[in-house]
Amino acid sequence: MPSPALPRILIEPLVRAALLEDLGRAGDLTTDAIVPVGQRATTLVVARQQGVVAGLDLARLAFQLIDPEIEMHVARHDGATVQPGDVIATLSGPARGILTAERVALNFLCRLSGIATATASVAAAVRDYKAKIVCTRKTTPGLRTVEKYAVRVGGGSNHRFGLDDAVLIKDNHVAVAGGVTEALRRAKACVGHLVKIELEVDTLDQLREALDHGVDAVLLDNMTPDTLREAVAMVAGRAVTEASGRITPATAPSVASTGVDLISIGWLTHSISILDIGLDFKASA
Amino acid sequence: MPSPALPRILIEPLVRAALLEDLGRAGDLTTDAIVPVGQRATTLVVARQQGVVAGLDLARLAFQLIDPEIEMHVARHDGATVQPGDVIATLSGPARGILTAERVALNFLCRLSGIATATASVAAAVRDYKAKIVCTRKTTPGLRTVEKYAVRVGGGSNHRFGLDDAVLIKDNHVAVAGGVTEALRRAKACVGHLVKIELEVDTLDQLREALDHGVDAVLLDNMTPDTLREAVAMVAGRAVTEASGRITPATAPSVASTGVDLISIGWLTHSISILDIGLDFKASA
Amino acid sequence: MPSPALPRILIEPLVRAALLEDLGRAGDLTTDAIVPVGQRATTLVVARQQGVVAGLDLARLAFQLIDPEIEMHVARHDGATVQPGDVIATLSGPARGILTAERVALNFLCRLSGIATATASVAAAVRDYKAKIVCTRKTTPGLRTVEKYAVRVGGGSNHRFGLDDAVLIKDNHVAVAGGVTEALRRAKACVGHLVKIELEVDTLDQLREALDHGVDAVLLDNMTPDTLREAVAMVAGRAVTEASGRITPATAPSVASTGVDLISIGWLTHSISILDIGLDFKASA
Amino acid sequence: MPSPALPRILIEPLVRAALLEDLGRAGDLTTDAIVPVGQRATTLVVARQQGVVAGLDLARLAFQLIDPEIEMHVARHDGATVQPGDVIATLSGPARGILTAERVALNFLCRLSGIATATASVAAAVRDYKAKIVCTRKTTPGLRTVEKYAVRVGGGSNHRFGLDDAVLIKDNHVAVAGGVTEALRRAKACVGHLVKIELEVDTLDQLREALDHGVDAVLLDNMTPDTLREAVAMVAGRAVTEASGRITPATAPSVASTGVDLISIGWLTHSISILDIGLDFKASA
Amino acid sequence: MPSPALPRILIEPLVRAALLEDLGRAGDLTTDAIVPVGQRATTLVVARQQGVVAGLDLARLAFQLIDPEIEMHVARHDGATVQPGDVIATLSGPARGILTAERVALNFLCRLSGIATATASVAAAVRDYKAKIVCTRKTTPGLRTVEKYAVRVGGGSNHRFGLDDAVLIKDNHVAVAGGVTEALRRAKACVGHLVKIELEVDTLDQLREALDHGVDAVLLDNMTPDTLREAVAMVAGRAVTEASGRITPATAPSVASTGVDLISIGWLTHSISILDIGLDFKASA
Amino acid sequence: MPSPALPRILIEPLVRAALLEDLGRAGDLTTDAIVPVGQRATTLVVARQQGVVAGLDLARLAFQLIDPEIEMHVARHDGATVQPGDVIATLSGPARGILTAERVALNFLCRLSGIATATASVAAAVRDYKAKIVCTRKTTPGLRTVEKYAVRVGGGSNHRFGLDDAVLIKDNHVAVAGGVTEALRRAKACVGHLVKIELEVDTLDQLREALDHGVDAVLLDNMTPDTLREAVAMVAGRAVTEASGRITPATAPSVASTGVDLISIGWLTHSISILDIGLDFKASA
Repeated sequence: MPSPALPRILIEPLVRAALLEDLGRAGDLTTDAIVPVGQRATTLVVARQQGVVAGLDLARLAFQLIDPEIEMHVARHDGATVQPGDVIATLSGPARGILTAERVALNFLCRLSGIATATASVAAAVRDYKAKIVCTRKTTPGLRTVEKYAVRVGGGSNHRFGLDDAVLIKDNHVAVAGGVTEALRRAKACVGHLVKIELEVDTLDQLREALDHGVDAVLLDNMTPDTLREAVAMVAGRAVTEASGRITPATAPSVASTGVDLISIGWLTHSISILDIGLDFKASA
Repeated sequence: MPSPALPRILIEPLVRAALLEDLGRAGDLTTDAIVPVGQRATTLVVARQQGVVAGLDLARLAFQLIDPEIEMHVARHDGATVQPGDVIATLSGPARGILTAERVALNFLCRLSGIATATASVAAAVRDYKAKIVCTRKTTPGLRTVEKYAVRVGGGSNHRFGLDDAVLIKDNHVAVAGGVTEALRRAKACVGHLVKIELEVDTLDQLREALDHGVDAVLLDNMTPDTLREAVAMVAGRAVTEASGRITPATAPSVASTGVDLISIGWLTHSISILDIGLDFKASA
Repeated sequence: MPSPALPRILIEPLVRAALLEDLGRAGDLTTDAIVPVGQRATTLVVARQQGVVAGLDLARLAFQLIDPEIEMHVARHDGATVQPGDVIATLSGPARGILTAERVALNFLCRLSGIATATASVAAAVRDYKAKIVCTRKTTPGLRTVEKYAVRVGGGSNHRFGLDDAVLIKDNHVAVAGGVTEALRRAKACVGHLVKIELEVDTLDQLREALDHGVDAVLLDNMTPDTLREAVAMVAGRAVTEASGRITPATAPSVASTGVDLISIGWLTHSISILDIGLDFKASA
Repeated sequence: MPSPALPRILIEPLVRAALLEDLGRAGDLTTDAIVPVGQRATTLVVARQQGVVAGLDLARLAFQLIDPEIEMHVARHDGATVQPGDVIATLSGPARGILTAERVALNFLCRLSGIATATASVAAAVRDYKAKIVCTRKTTPGLRTVEKYAVRVGGGSNHRFGLDDAVLIKDNHVAVAGGVTEALRRAKACVGHLVKIELEVDTLDQLREALDHGVDAVLLDNMTPDTLREAVAMVAGRAVTEASGRITPATAPSVASTGVDLISIGWLTHSISILDIGLDFKASA
Repeated sequence: MPSPALPRILIEPLVRAALLEDLGRAGDLTTDAIVPVGQRATTLVVARQQGVVAGLDLARLAFQLIDPEIEMHVARHDGATVQPGDVIATLSGPARGILTAERVALNFLCRLSGIATATASVAAAVRDYKAKIVCTRKTTPGLRTVEKYAVRVGGGSNHRFGLDDAVLIKDNHVAVAGGVTEALRRAKACVGHLVKIELEVDTLDQLREALDHGVDAVLLDNMTPDTLREAVAMVAGRAVTEASGRITPATAPSVASTGVDLISIGWLTHSISILDIGLDFKASA
Repeated sequence: MPSPALPRILIEPLVRAALLEDLGRAGDLTTDAIVPVGQRATTLVVARQQGVVAGLDLARLAFQLIDPEIEMHVARHDGATVQPGDVIATLSGPARGILTAERVALNFLCRLSGIATATASVAAAVRDYKAKIVCTRKTTPGLRTVEKYAVRVGGGSNHRFGLDDAVLIKDNHVAVAGGVTEALRRAKACVGHLVKIELEVDTLDQLREALDHGVDAVLLDNMTPDTLREAVAMVAGRAVTEASGRITPATAPSVASTGVDLISIGWLTHSISILDIGLDFKASA
C-alpha cells in the first residue's frame, strides 16, 4: 500500500486555494439548488485518452476538503499507464460534494497527468540511451512543487526547484562577469558546500574553459548533435552534460545518441496538453 | 495612456507568491554571487514567435516587487499582435533585479500571451460569423482571474468565473433531478434575480423541453453541425446558444456557420503552448 | 438530517480568525486560571427573544476549533422560529473550551440570527404580495457570504454578491456614459453571456429608454408607490422590477402592493439588532 | 495636522480583505465597461444624517488600494459632529477607482460612524455624571480593533480587547470555583502583575466577599438603580464599579446617577444603525 | 491527565510554518529516497542534559502534521525536571514521517525547554525570597506566545505580551512628557479601566513623584541593592516593585533580598542555551 | 552604496508579523497616550558591546512599516565590527513611530548581530586554517532565512537551508538502508543532477565505504582530532570534509588543525547571546 507521494502539508494549501477560487462567495449555486442533501452517488474517474496518471492525491483532497465523507478508492495509482475507458478510481459519497469538487479535482489531475504523459513519451523516445529527461523552471506560477512531481511520475528527473537550491550560470551572468572563468570563480567563492554549479555554454571554447576551472554540470544550449557529440567527448566524464533547446520527441533520439546525460525540456511544464480524464456519475437515492 | 487592465490588488498576491516560490529561502544564488550590486542593465522583452501579447502588468509587477527601481517601458500593449523580433518592452535598472525576476515575469507573460494567441487564432477563424469564442472553468488552479483576462485580450469572451456567479445545469444535474423541467424548476426557485441559468442539452428533445420552460442559455454539447443548425432554428432567439465539444481552429468555422452565438473551448486555458518571449540583456557598468 | 448549509471550507477561515482575534497572544486568562482541566459541562443555547435562528454551523465550528471534544446537538435548526426560553442546542464537553469559545460562537449566532429575524419580519409584512425581499452589498466587511446566507435563511433572496457577478448600472455610471442608452450599450458590449444587467432609474423617462434598449432588471430608486405602480405597468413583465429606498416593515406592504418583483433593503445587513441568544451553563465534576 | 489614529499596519489587512471580497475574481464589471480609463472625477463624501464621524482612514485606504492616484482631502476629521448635508471629505482622481472602491469605503465609514454616533449619544445622556460609557467583546467578528476605536472616537472607553488582556470572572467561573473567594484566589495565583481582575457580582453579598478579598473592578450586572447605589456605597472607592444590563440612552442617566464609574453597553457594537453617509459624484472629462 | 497547555489554534500556525520552512518545495529528499514507505519505527525522545521540559505539544503537532499516524506517548510532561538519559516521550509510527519532522519538533522542544530551564534556575536561586521571575518583550519574533508559555512552565511569571495589554512608561516617555507626573496624567486619561500602568524610574525622586500620583507598578532600573531596598521601603506596598538590569542567577539573590516583588530578565528569552534533547531511533520492518 | 542584502520580498513578511505580534489589537497604548502626534525625534542606534552588526535592513523595515516618514541613516553596515558606544545608525522622524517600532527592530537586530558575532568569533579562532565555519538546520522556527544570512555576515558559510536542497544521510538513514553503500545507492538513484549528497559517518570504516561508492561530502561526527586527521588523510580530497559535535571557540583550532574543510556548529543559531544594541532617544518639539 503506497503512501501519499507528496506530504499533505505541501499540497493542501494549493487544493484549498483552488476550491475557494471556484466556490467564490456563494458556493455551487447549481448543485445546491438541484441536488438533494441526502443524495448519494458513485462516480468513476475514467481515462478518455491513453497516458500516465499523476495527481490522484490532489484530486482526493479536493473531494475530501468539500466533504470528508467522500471516499476515493484508487485502482490505478500515480505512474500507471492507462488506456481510454480505464477506470482510474471510484468515488462514493454525498452527490453534492462530488459534483461541487469535480472541476477542481479534474483540473489538477488532468494537468499533472498531461505532464506525466508528455514526460513519459519523451523518456520512451530515448529509452535506448542513458539520457534522462529533466524539466526546467518554466513551470506554472504556484504549481512548481506538483508539476515537478508529475515530471518524476512520468519518468523524468528534476532540475533546480528555484533560484536558491543550485547555481545555474547563464549567458547573461557570464557576460556580466566578463567570462566563464571569472563567473565560476565568483560563484565558487560565494556558495555553500552543498550547492552544485552548472554553467551554460554556447561554444566549445567556453566548455573547455569551464572544464579547466571545474564545474559540476554544463548546459549545452542549442547545439547540433555533432557539436554535442564533440562536447561530450571533451567533457569525458568530468561534468554532467545537459542538452537543451526546443527538443521534441522526434528530435530527442538524435540528441540522446550524442551521449549527453540529460535532456532538459521546458515545454513539459509550459506547453503540454492535459490528459483527458472525466467523471462518470451514477446517482442513487 | 491606458490604465492597468486588472487592478493591482487582484494580481499582486499571484505575483508575490510566484516570486517567493522561485526565490525559496535563500534567493538568487547565482546572480547574488556574480552580478555586482551597482551594475545596471537595459533589457529588451522580445517576441520570438508571432502572437498576441497579454500579461504585461504581471511582468512589470514581478520586476518591481524585486526592485522598485526597475522601470519597464511598454512598446506593444496587451492585445497587440507581435512578430518574431518585435520589441514588446524595455526594462532598465539594476541588473541583479532584472535577472532575478526574469523567469517569473516570463512565466506569466508567455503563458497569458499563449492563451491570448490561441484565442485570437480561433476568433480569426470564425470572424465571418457572429459566434464569439468563450473559455471554460478548465483553468489552471490559482490563475483563473488572469487566464480569463488573457482570453478577453485575445478577443474571446468569458463564461462563468466560478460555481457561484451563474447556474450551469449539466447532464448529471438533470439526471439527479429526473429531467430538464424539474432541474430548471429547482434552479429558478433558488437563485437570485441577477443569476442567469444555462442548461446543457444532449438532444433536441431536451432542448425543446428547456425552451418550453424558459432558460437564458443552452449548451449544445457534442452536436454535429447539422444538429446544431436545427437547434439554432428551434431556439429562434429565445436563448443564447453555445456549442461545445473539442472544437479546433479547423472545425470552428463549420460550427460557427450553424449560427450559434458562442463556441466554448476548454483547451484555450488548459492545453495551449506558451508564446515564446525572451529577454535580450545588455549590461552596463 | 440536513447537511451543513454552507461548506466548511467557506466558513472555517472566518471562525478561525474570530477566535484568534479573541484569544490574542495569551488565550483565555480567566478560564485557564479558574476552571480545572478535567471539568466537564453541559450547556444550553437558549433564545432570549423571539426570532429566526441562523448560523449554528459557525457556532459549532467555534466550539470545535477550540476543543474537538465539544459536541453540539441542535434542537432548532437554521430557519426555525424560536420563542424566549426555547433551547436551540445543547453543548457538552470540556468546560474550559465551552467557556473560551462562548463569545465568538454567540457573536456569529446572534448577528446572523438578527439578520434572519429582520428579513423574516419584512418578508412576513409582504406575504400577501409576490414581492421578494433582497439584501444589498451594504454588508459587514468580511462577512458577506454568511450575512447573505442569513438573509436566505430568513426567507429573503440575494442581490449581487460583489462587483463581479452582475452589472448594476447606477446613476453615476449613467451620468458618465451620457445617458441610459449609451450606458446599456457599453455594458452589453463588454460582459459575458451569463452576466445579467440591471439599471437604476430615477424617472419613468429613463425607464422607458431602458426598456426600449432591453435590460434584465430595473432598480426603481426612491419612487412613491404611485410612480412604482406606473413603472410596473410600463415594464409589463419585460424586466424584473426592484424597488429600493429606505423601506421599512411599515412601508413595505404599500410598496409591495404596487406589483414590484423585489424590495431591496440595505439595513437588513447594516443596521439590525442582534437576536439575543445566551448560554445557560451547568458544570459537572 | 493629526496623524492617522490607527497605524496603517493594523487596518490595511481589513481593508484589503474587504476589497477582495467585493471585487471577486473579475473586478468591477459595471465600471470597467462604462467608465473610460482617462475619466477623472471629484466626489464629495456627504453626511445624510446627524452624527459623529469615524473611520476616515479606512475609507481613504480603500480608495488608495484601488488606485493610489485618488486623493482624499478631509474636511471633518474623526470625532467631528456633522449635520445632514455636511461635506466630510472630497475625493479627486480617476473616476473608475472612486466608483470601484465606493461601497467598501462607505461600508467601513458608515458602520464606524454609526458606532461613534451611538456612543456619543449615550455619553451625552450621562454627561452630568462621572460615569464613562464602555463597550464589550460583543463586536463584529474580525472588526474588534476598529469598532473599539470607533467607541473611543464617540467619547467612550474600552473594556477588554480579548480574553487575554484582563481577567473578567463571570458567574459561570464563580460557580465552577465554588464561590467568589476561591475564584479570586485562583485568578490572583495565576496571572501576571500587569493584569487587572474584574468580577461580575449578582448580589451585594457577593460584592462584599469580593471587596474583602480585593479586586480591581466589579461588574454589577442587571441591578436596579437602588441596588447599584448601595453597591457603590459599599465599594467606597476600593474598586472600579461597572453597571451593565441592557442600558439605553433613556435609562442611562438614572444608572449614572447611582455614582457608578462605568456603564457598559453591548449594543454599541452589535445592534447600532449605521450613520448614513453617501458620495456625491461629479465626473469631468 | 493534563490537557494541552496552549490551545491548538494558537500553536498550529507556528508549527505548520516551521514545517513548510524546512520542507521547502521538494520535501525531505533524503528520507524519501532511502526509507521505504511501509517502514515503521519506534523512537525515544531523550534528554541529553538536566533541565525542565517545555513544548511537548508543539513537538507532537510537528509529527502529526507530517503524518497523523504517528503517535506520541509522553512520559515526562511540560514542567518536569529531567536528567540526562531520561526518556521524555516515545514516538511510534511511520519511519518516514518521524525522520522528516524530527528537526522541527526538536527546534521547538529544545528552545522552549531551554527557556524553561533558565527560568527555573533563576527561580531556584531566589526561592528563599518572595520575588518572582518575569520575562520581557525581548522575545524571538514570531514566538512570543510560546516563549512566554515556557517561562511560566519554568516557574516564572509573564510581563506584558505586547504594547497593547498594559502601559509601561519608560524613560523616553517621561522625557517627552516633561516629567513623571505629566506622563502618568496623560496615561491615566487615555486608557481603559482594565489596563494597568507601570512606570520606569531611575531615581528615588522619580519614584516618590510616581507614588504621589499613584501607579500600579514601578520598574526600578539598574539600581544597586541598597537603592532597591530604599525604594521598596518608600513604596511600602503601594505599588508592585520590579527590579531589572542584567540580573543573573549569581546576582539574583542579592536583588531578591531587597524585598522587590519581581525580577525581570530579558535574557530568559533572548540569550539562553537550548536544552539538549535528541531522538533515539529504532526502525522495524 | 550597497544594496539590500536580502530582497525585501523575503523579509517583509517576517517584520510585518513581528510588528503585528507586538501591537496586538490596540497598538502602543503608552506611546499613543503620552507622545504628541507632531513630536519628532532623532535617535541613535548604539552598540553596547563589541560585535558584528547584522540585520539593519530588518530594523529599517520595522520603523518604516510603522511610519514611512522615519528615515534611517546607516553609519556601520552589516558586517562591520563595532565597539561599545559606536553609533550604528541614526533614526529621524516622528517620535511615536520610533518608540512603537523600537522593540521589534531591536529584537531582530540584536539577535542577528549576536549570531554574526558568534560566527565571527569562531571564524577568528580558526583563521590560520582553511576550515570554514558553517551553521545547521537548528535555527529558530520561522527565521531560517535571516539567521543563515547572519552567519554569512559573520564570515561563516551555509549548510542546507532545508530538507529539500541537498541530501544529508544521517545514521538513522544508514541504519534503515542496512549500510552506507545501500543508502548511497538509493540516494543517487532518486535525486536530480544538481543535488549534492553528504553522508554522516561515525567510523573510518564507514568513511572508506562511502569514498569507495563516491560522495560529495562527509560529516565526521564527534570524532577526536586524531581520528579527524586520519579521516582527512583517507579522504585525500575526494570529498568535502565536515567536522561536527559541540565544537566551541576553544576547541575549534584543534579541530581545524586536522585539515577538515568545514566545522559545523549548531549553537551559532540556537544558543547564542544577543549583541546588546540600544536606542538613545532625543526628542524635539
